[in-house]
Amino acid sequence: MRITQGVEWALHCCHALAEAPGGVALTVQQLAELHAGNPAYLAKHLQALSRAGIVLSVLGPRGGYRLGRPPDQIRLLDVVEAIEGQGPVFLCTEIRQRGPAALAPASYRMPCAIAAAVGAAEQAWRRELASTTVADIVAESRRRAPEAIAATARWLEQSAQNRGRRSSGGDAGATGP
Amino acid sequence: MRITQGVEWALHCCHALAEAPGGVALTVQQLAELHAGNPAYLAKHLQALSRAGIVLSVLGPRGGYRLGRPPDQIRLLDVVEAIEGQGPVFLCTEIRQRGPAALAPASYRMPCAIAAAVGAAEQAWRRELASTTVADIVAESRRRAPEAIAATARWLEQSAQNRGRRSSGGDAGATGP
Repeated sequence: MRITQGVEWALHCCHALAEAPGGVALTVQQLAELHAGNPAYLAKHLQALSRAGIVLSVLGPRGGYRLGRPPDQIRLLDVVEAIEGQGPVFLCTEIRQRGPAALAPASYRMPCAIAAAVGAAEQAWRRELASTTVADIVAESRRRAPEAIAATARWLEQSAQNRGRRSSGGDAGATGP
Repeated sequence: MRITQGVEWALHCCHALAEAPGGVALTVQQLAELHAGNPAYLAKHLQALSRAGIVLSVLGPRGGYRLGRPPDQIRLLDVVEAIEGQGPVFLCTEIRQRGPAALAPASYRMPCAIAAAVGAAEQAWRRELASTTVADIVAESRRRAPEAIAATARWLEQSAQNRGRRSSGGDAGATGP
């Protein structure tokens, strides 16, 4: 049982978008460059986040991705479910109802005790993931690695300025910085 | 993210072994027959349970598998880890330390906030799985599906008697029922 690496990348993308200067949109290319990721791989996961409303795709020369709602309204559970799906972690296949000792379905009205116990653990996991937001993660990162977060902020600022300059050069109508 | 079906089968095997009449050993064949499972598939998972000390392999004409310790000392977490491994569900690959804005490792002394938050959810899951034992599951099954559990007990009793008869017939030295 593993959470895929897509979840880790998706959470780091949300983290970066939450820190984007002035809530500016970031392109897949910028998000990939920030942490030396693969743009095509990130694009796939950003599309999943977009389908879940966690990020918004913005068109135009200053386009890219923005968070779809304030970071304190994006729970880690939302991101995990957007990438991994909402299905149960443990799927009960009713093993107890198979074989020569099995009775009619009426004898199994209550859920299987095994499914109930493993399901309770899954609920504890979901509750915990639902109790933390992207805003919490950003605040905690600032506490844990303040220099690194400051360096990321500087890089994002510089990257947005470079993009603005390119955008102004190529399109006189765009509002450069 | 899914718990494999091997965990479901392993838990049902532990459940059956906990109900084996007089703690008699059950063969892979009996365990497979009880719930119409695949013997080779179950054998693989019983070997994993055996390596973890959750079941004991007993040799001889009355051999098979027994629980390796009392059912109230076998936690669901033990069974899940025996089948799925003990590694973390979420593996942090230190994405934050990659790319043009990354600093020297000294700036990342504390674990990543994302890994810490997702890890806290994993700990909640483990705590819950560690709080329930095979004995709890059996007691809860008796409460939830008493007729089905009684039918299983009768089948196990009959299966043990049949095996004893075959064993006595084929080997005069074996103690039949």
